[in-house]
Amino acid sequence: MANHGEWQFGIYFSGLVGEKPTLPMDYAALERAAEAAMSEEVWSYVAGGAGNEHTQRANVTAFERWGLMPRMLAGAAQRDLGVELFGHQLPTPLMLAPVGVIGICEPEGHGDLTTARAAAATGVPMIASTLMQDPMEDVAAALGDTPGWFQLYPPNDRELTESLVRRAEAAGYRAIVITLDTLTLGWRPRDLTIASFPQLTGLCLANYTSDPVFRSRLDAPPEEDPQAATGLWARIFGNQSLSWDDLGWLRSLTTLPILLKGICSPDDARRAVDAGIDGIYCSNHGGRQANGGLPALDCLADVVDAAGDAPVIFDSGVRGGPDVVKALAMGARAVAIGRPYAYGLAVGGQAGIEHVVRSMLAETDLTMAVDGYPTIASLTRDALRPVG
Amino acid sequence: MANHGEWQFGIYFSGLVGEKPTLPMDYAALERAAEAAMSEEVWSYVAGGAGNEHTQRANVTAFERWGLMPRMLAGAAQRDLGVELFGHQLPTPLMLAPVGVIGICEPEGHGDLTTARAAAATGVPMIASTLMQDPMEDVAAALGDTPGWFQLYPPNDRELTESLVRRAEAAGYRAIVITLDTLTLGWRPRDLTIASFPQLTGLCLANYTSDPVFRSRLDAPPEEDPQAATGLWARIFGNQSLSWDDLGWLRSLTTLPILLKGICSPDDARRAVDAGIDGIYCSNHGGRQANGGLPALDCLADVVDAAGDAPVIFDSGVRGGPDVVKALAMGARAVAIGRPYAYGLAVGGQAGIEHVVRSMLAETDLTMAVDGYPTIASLTRDALRPVG
Amino acid sequence: MANHGEWQFGIYFSGLVGEKPTLPMDYAALERAAEAAMSEEVWSYVAGGAGNEHTQRANVTAFERWGLMPRMLAGAAQRDLGVELFGHQLPTPLMLAPVGVIGICEPEGHGDLTTARAAAATGVPMIASTLMQDPMEDVAAALGDTPGWFQLYPPNDRELTESLVRRAEAAGYRAIVITLDTLTLGWRPRDLTIASFPQLTGLCLANYTSDPVFRSRLDAPPEEDPQAATGLWARIFGNQSLSWDDLGWLRSLTTLPILLKGICSPDDARRAVDAGIDGIYCSNHGGRQANGGLPALDCLADVVDAAGDAPVIFDSGVRGGPDVVKALAMGARAVAIGRPYAYGLAVGGQAGIEHVVRSMLAETDLTMAVDGYPTIASLTRDALRPVG
Amino acid sequence: MANHGEWQFGIYFSGLVGEKPTLPMDYAALERAAEAAMSEEVWSYVAGGAGNEHTQRANVTAFERWGLMPRMLAGAAQRDLGVELFGHQLPTPLMLAPVGVIGICEPEGHGDLTTARAAAATGVPMIASTLMQDPMEDVAAALGDTPGWFQLYPPNDRELTESLVRRAEAAGYRAIVITLDTLTLGWRPRDLTIASFPQLTGLCLANYTSDPVFRSRLDAPPEEDPQAATGLWARIFGNQSLSWDDLGWLRSLTTLPILLKGICSPDDARRAVDAGIDGIYCSNHGGRQANGGLPALDCLADVVDAAGDAPVIFDSGVRGGPDVVKALAMGARAVAIGRPYAYGLAVGGQAGIEHVVRSMLAETDLTMAVDGYPTIASLTRDALRPVG
Repeated sequence: MANHGEWQFGIYFSGLVGEKPTLPMDYAALERAAEAAMSEEVWSYVAGGAGNEHTQRANVTAFERWGLMPRMLAGAAQRDLGVELFGHQLPTPLMLAPVGVIGICEPEGHGDLTTARAAAATGVPMIASTLMQDPMEDVAAALGDTPGWFQLYPPNDRELTESLVRRAEAAGYRAIVITLDTLTLGWRPRDLTIASFPQLTGLCLANYTSDPVFRSRLDAPPEEDPQAATGLWARIFGNQSLSWDDLGWLRSLTTLPILLKGICSPDDARRAVDAGIDGIYCSNHGGRQANGGLPALDCLADVVDAAGDAPVIFDSGVRGGPDVVKALAMGARAVAIGRPYAYGLAVGGQAGIEHVVRSMLAETDLTMAVDGYPTIASLTRDALRPVG
Repeated sequence: MANHGEWQFGIYFSGLVGEKPTLPMDYAALERAAEAAMSEEVWSYVAGGAGNEHTQRANVTAFERWGLMPRMLAGAAQRDLGVELFGHQLPTPLMLAPVGVIGICEPEGHGDLTTARAAAATGVPMIASTLMQDPMEDVAAALGDTPGWFQLYPPNDRELTESLVRRAEAAGYRAIVITLDTLTLGWRPRDLTIASFPQLTGLCLANYTSDPVFRSRLDAPPEEDPQAATGLWARIFGNQSLSWDDLGWLRSLTTLPILLKGICSPDDARRAVDAGIDGIYCSNHGGRQANGGLPALDCLADVVDAAGDAPVIFDSGVRGGPDVVKALAMGARAVAIGRPYAYGLAVGGQAGIEHVVRSMLAETDLTMAVDGYPTIASLTRDALRPVG
Repeated sequence: MANHGEWQFGIYFSGLVGEKPTLPMDYAALERAAEAAMSEEVWSYVAGGAGNEHTQRANVTAFERWGLMPRMLAGAAQRDLGVELFGHQLPTPLMLAPVGVIGICEPEGHGDLTTARAAAATGVPMIASTLMQDPMEDVAAALGDTPGWFQLYPPNDRELTESLVRRAEAAGYRAIVITLDTLTLGWRPRDLTIASFPQLTGLCLANYTSDPVFRSRLDAPPEEDPQAATGLWARIFGNQSLSWDDLGWLRSLTTLPILLKGICSPDDARRAVDAGIDGIYCSNHGGRQANGGLPALDCLADVVDAAGDAPVIFDSGVRGGPDVVKALAMGARAVAIGRPYAYGLAVGGQAGIEHVVRSMLAETDLTMAVDGYPTIASLTRDALRPVG
Repeated sequence: MANHGEWQFGIYFSGLVGEKPTLPMDYAALERAAEAAMSEEVWSYVAGGAGNEHTQRANVTAFERWGLMPRMLAGAAQRDLGVELFGHQLPTPLMLAPVGVIGICEPEGHGDLTTARAAAATGVPMIASTLMQDPMEDVAAALGDTPGWFQLYPPNDRELTESLVRRAEAAGYRAIVITLDTLTLGWRPRDLTIASFPQLTGLCLANYTSDPVFRSRLDAPPEEDPQAATGLWARIFGNQSLSWDDLGWLRSLTTLPILLKGICSPDDARRAVDAGIDGIYCSNHGGRQANGGLPALDCLADVVDAAGDAPVIFDSGVRGGPDVVKALAMGARAVAIGRPYAYGLAVGGQAGIEHVVRSMLAETDLTMAVDGYPTIASLTRDALRPVG
């Protein structure tokens, strides 16, 4: 693991050593640069969300209703951002959320590998999506020592599900994140208008087309009849009838920790833990799946309480260091980002992701430094005040 | 009833089968397209509201203060959007609200018939306005098997009132919706500045000019002296002295279910039910009649509670599927849209209305699918959280 | 009193009889037209307020936090907007607030007289400002039968104060409104940047230069040495040391009802009533005097409660009929407008004021008609709901 | 002390004596003029803040949630804005907050001296920053009789710390303000993108380069090797390991009153007072250091309560007189401004600062005059109401 401390202010950031950064230093500029760098289709797919995107915006503004209480002389000269997750120690609580089209967020179409390399360079774990443009085994290899988790969209094909999970375990992924909020696709006007779903043109299906079970379902190999492969994918992508009763079977597939992603209701969190699930991933998919209007952050504290000892990962609306800090103070064990690093990739390739990650970490670290929180453990709900 | 399931995602929407829709996929784009397609007068009349239109905007933003709690693995693989209303089963809880100028929202001026055909094609009931451009009998015929309700602006002429109600019953309408919030017209600056009231130029008066009682009040047939007919209309349009005491008489005119439209006060809802009214239509006329500032949604839950077993229909501010879902969760039995389908008609004729209806249903359905609500009955107030 | 019923919808408004109004029908358009019609100096003076004008804007948005509960079939076919004030019956609760530069809001500089004529034509009382461009006696004569009240800026010259009050009584004004929030002028950046205070160039001082006491204080008549007159005015304009102890003396000057204007604190209202003051004028001067941030509407209910039987007049932020209705429901006995009629005057002279007044009344009346409040007495606090 | 009463309305402001001011009269115009006058680098540094500057904006809007209750006839003809601080009487509660680059906010680079002269001319105390462009002794001399306080960024070099404190005491500063929220620099995207930190190019380091201890740490005098001096500065600037245990030592360095700046938590305020600290400076550095989202004003009342008898100084978000008044009513003993006077300096040199100061005081004074608060002591929390 090289240079994982680089994000610490004064080492990485050129402002202090006389050079100007060539990459955007704030999210608004990053967003603009990404829109300019991406094709209209990819931009619309990544930037867009469900319905009129109100939930997506509400995810972001929910953070503004909370303020972090500054504490002076609180012994925060050195910060330790390390967290423990499933018995492993992570250098920071930041993670790269699964992004199903990260593969095509770079022109060459190997964004999954690039993301893995950026994860390796920064030590920030990557949660690799089922929807990859390169097979999961290649991505795992690119991660090196940095932990990778495998995000599973459970297909409505039990054998394929088992195959994907076992491949993930064999490839070295250290946890399985089962996404529950995308058993069907949400209502996304931008995709219907501009983007289409990239997967429908055969993109980001590498984990399927490389899978022996998936291939066995086809009359011809995907290389020969890609349309048939895509059609099959569309039919088996989401197991809409997955139920709480299936958790035992899923649990039996692997000894890796399993997390359920998309949990916002404390009842669901409780039920998951009772069913032997190891961790909860509180998220509303960044507002991409349902425009129901409830910001994910509004759900976090109750989910944490309901999850008991099980760690809670959070994403949805995180745009800067203070958001990371607030989600941690609400009780998240780790916090993931999606769009920010996808934009970083589009704008600057691997260096772009690293830049986004290091900026996010530097801002997290400096927020803790200035406001007097030396460790993640010191960030409790007492640190937060409702604003206004 | 043909293809009523078409709105289900994956069947209707071309995004999944490789074609792009030619009609706008989001409300903002629909609104822009409608403004471009409509004459300035019709646009102003339909888009405008009372006073500075604050109530109209507040109707919309009221929905943003509520969030739907996502529930995972809740058995929502198949949704049943069916609802029961007055002993009939409807495929979905969506209805087309009465729009008094829908007739002229298409250039040919037969928008009522077109709406009826779109209702027939989608199975979504039409509440036909008293102010039609074609007689109610023709509109009823175009509805086919799809239910139609007749919305009555009660004139200050008892015989004419009776004639209209009896014609509606004879034509096959299945309920009478008596609008109470328009016994006089509201203060609408756009109408006074740009639009005038279309009815004053003789438009949308077909139900009057075709009515034997109305005609008997004129010295010459309307075809010969349209100005006199319009003048008579202006004098008898609204029975401003209608009172609670008149409900018995109205009740006696028909065996059809009667609903009162414009109810926002729980006291009024209670009184209506006590007077033998069958259903409550909670609405503030989309903010067109009074700019009093109270969003209709803010009134819904109390009206539902007061209405007891009587079903409550809701409109005012519904712009997308999540709004439908939230109104249902508040307790509405069915939810109606007005401006959205008027814009659909202006932009794409019958296909435009169908597109708006199917989009609204698809978004409703997908919101329920993703957030785990398999039936309308599963949408209760527990599903909602205040945001912020 | 001619045509006082003209504001009733269907009589005045041309929309129903085929003509389009030539004057703006909504406040935003009125504001734009007034800015175009006025000189930059007058516009800045009238449109501007204290500080960054936050209080001025807050006065307006405060109304949006309240909603009027619609009530159906409430017997509002005919409305009676009449109110009783100090033993006199007024046709409506609307009044024209004192505007110290209304005189120069018309190019000819006789805006006080024009306002009086508009008041006479509409039956809406005028509260004439101390700062007039024509003497109060001429203005009173132009009012005809319509009531006029005289607004007093109490000078720091007891004899002049007495002279002004006695002249007002003799001229036929029916009440004295003593403004307490302008004993010194507020911090108004626009006036300091663009407008200057018109009074400093000798404008709007007719009540002083026509006053025998004021003239007796000068070495030369104001006609010969206007600069000296202006200088004297600047020195004696505001009696900054006026105190509660002076109320007895003020009370002794006249048998007319006395109101105190600028009262927002319930303690002040109580004290005023205890001191024999007849009415309370709740206002923060439209945000022109102090940018303290408290909307006047937020103070109204407590002031009404504290005032007991004494009537409360309200202004500050009233821009349309629903605002009038809400202030009445809060407990105001009458509601005054300032900027709206000043803009009406600038845009259309006497007809412009009448248009604004009739529009305001028509919207008030129609809001009551549609929402089911037949009389001012029916507008109680139960009619209001906080929004959101 | 010359003309300290000049800010009183009617004396200073030319609006009343026929001249128009050449300097901006409102903050928005001042901001625009400053941006035009400053280099991009200085503008970005001064105008910018931490992260996406949400906290900086929240500091300002926090004031809008409070309203000042107007009180009439409250004996405010003459106002006394005087306050007592550490045994000295100040003419007003306004102070000039330390601004570390005020030196280069004027093109000639002697902004510290110019600020001192403006302080001397207005009687408003200057809190001089450690980061000066001219040595503190020269600045103190320019202050004349007007009090100056010395703001200390405690270096991680005890001898240098002692030298700076002793020099400040010898130069006549009357209090030491120890800034605790900048022991490390915050995450400031604008600085990293555009501005760099001016100090890194050797600017504003006069208090270091003139210091015998600092010089003794260098191999060559700073005049000969400025880069080495800057490098040393970067290493010793902030004592990140400063702790509550160091307060005894800091206390021992001087008999001057010591204040801790950056306190927002009541616990910290209590602890500081218990440790013998004389005053609390409640501030979040104008949102420049951490983007944690809590407006400083939201913290003020609790800090005041926790500080007991120790006076509390406030800054962060003060843009006009009403803000000063509200902070005082919350319990601040004095209120400081930063950006406003930096912009004044950029726009108009010494006259620009004086203009900003006098405008701020005039608006403060007039707000108190109009709303009936004759003294600072009369401004209590009872004077404030939450808005909305």
